[in-house]
Amino acid sequence: MPKLSIVMFSGDMDKAMASMIIANGAAASGWDVTIFTTFWGTALFRDPNKKAPKPKDTMSKMFGMMLPNGPDEAKLSKMNMLGLGTRMMKNRMSAKKVRTLRGMMEDAKELGVRFLVCDLTMNIMGIQREEFSDIVDDFVGVGTYLGEAENADVNLFI
Amino acid sequence: MPKLSIVMFSGDMDKAMASMIIANGAAASGWDVTIFTTFWGTALFRDPNKKAPKPKDTMSKMFGMMLPNGPDEAKLSKMNMLGLGTRMMKNRMSAKKVRTLRGMMEDAKELGVRFLVCDLTMNIMGIQREEFSDIVDDFVGVGTYLGEAENADVNLFI
Amino acid sequence: MPKLSIVMFSGDMDKAMASMIIANGAAASGWDVTIFTTFWGTALFRDPNKKAPKPKDTMSKMFGMMLPNGPDEAKLSKMNMLGLGTRMMKNRMSAKKVRTLRGMMEDAKELGVRFLVCDLTMNIMGIQREEFSDIVDDFVGVGTYLGEAENADVNLFI
Repeated sequence: MPKLSIVMFSGDMDKAMASMIIANGAAASGWDVTIFTTFWGTALFRDPNKKAPKPKDTMSKMFGMMLPNGPDEAKLSKMNMLGLGTRMMKNRMSAKKVRTLRGMMEDAKELGVRFLVCDLTMNIMGIQREEFSDIVDDFVGVGTYLGEAENADVNLFI
Repeated sequence: MPKLSIVMFSGDMDKAMASMIIANGAAASGWDVTIFTTFWGTALFRDPNKKAPKPKDTMSKMFGMMLPNGPDEAKLSKMNMLGLGTRMMKNRMSAKKVRTLRGMMEDAKELGVRFLVCDLTMNIMGIQREEFSDIVDDFVGVGTYLGEAENADVNLFI
Repeated sequence: MPKLSIVMFSGDMDKAMASMIIANGAAASGWDVTIFTTFWGTALFRDPNKKAPKPKDTMSKMFGMMLPNGPDEAKLSKMNMLGLGTRMMKNRMSAKKVRTLRGMMEDAKELGVRFLVCDLTMNIMGIQREEFSDIVDDFVGVGTYLGEAENADVNLFI
């Protein structure tokens, strides 16, 4: 069984879609797929319906407000045009019957893709475990990533 | 013969140049090189002298107008400064006898680099096969990419 | 001993940090790690205390002024907000006892990470060897990169 490992660094809608399309294509063909979300990518795995159990300091609150709260708030890296371009792209994908980013992430989970969140990013951005979507499998450090990557046939940083 | 596979996601001039310099360096040394162009990278493979044979809907026309029409319209990802930075970079490359992005793509073709265009991107952006440059070899899905990537010695996402 | 090879294309603080965290995590576990800095990433390896021995032409001077002069001048790729976001991130990292980008690069050197600078970038941007930090090991072309990448277990383009 081939193995794919992706570092999902970007929180942009277009790059996150590229991650998910490659991941889901592989998982649907029986590959073992692991996605490590770090930095901006991490915010896409927050669940807007969940609350942080512990109080947050000012900086953590600011990160919380400025970062996208889950995949529906992700924006295009280019041609965002104050949100207009992103909305046009979403309409277009819907017209073409392409899954939303959220839908792709749910498909991934069903196909067995594993989602690991970078604990250093959580620490810096002040995001707590309880704020993440149920599709997240675990919270790990760079050592876990390297162990996966070493054994992967295909490694990508997106 | 070592094998290199690049996902060319970015349509920025600087990143596309990085893709082509690595690809051409490898192909010139006898490597088997495949480039998959997806999302913004796809527009760099349009031929400005070709016309779409089928009528386009409004959204496809808008994508057509907003995206670079071939490699000569690509812009720097940083320091573009309304086009000034990109023009300065082109002048500089010319003075230093560095090939243009278009020249690098033509060299790649001669060196045997294969160019595969992502059909999902074509569908979303409404670009038709007949609009692409002759250097494109085929139009494929993510499954074809994964088959190539699995057997590649070096995989990059640019 | 597993082998990691990173193309450090980006000069953004966040992406450079991702490069260094992965590189240092690997090197600390005994991996053989090589980083090739190209394009924007190259400017992060300039030493602000060093001077170019040979006179520079106008374009080289302009690149010299516009590009970050070493890691302390790197900016976030997102939420930079005219420098405010980058300053907030630096304060936050300091409060969380995360090393600065400069500190990470120094750690890397001690851990045995090798830094190779792309000579084509130096030529285009007009940066001379004597301007680089002492952590740089050598100045090389794409062929050297490909030789390293072919033998690496994990290849990333960041």
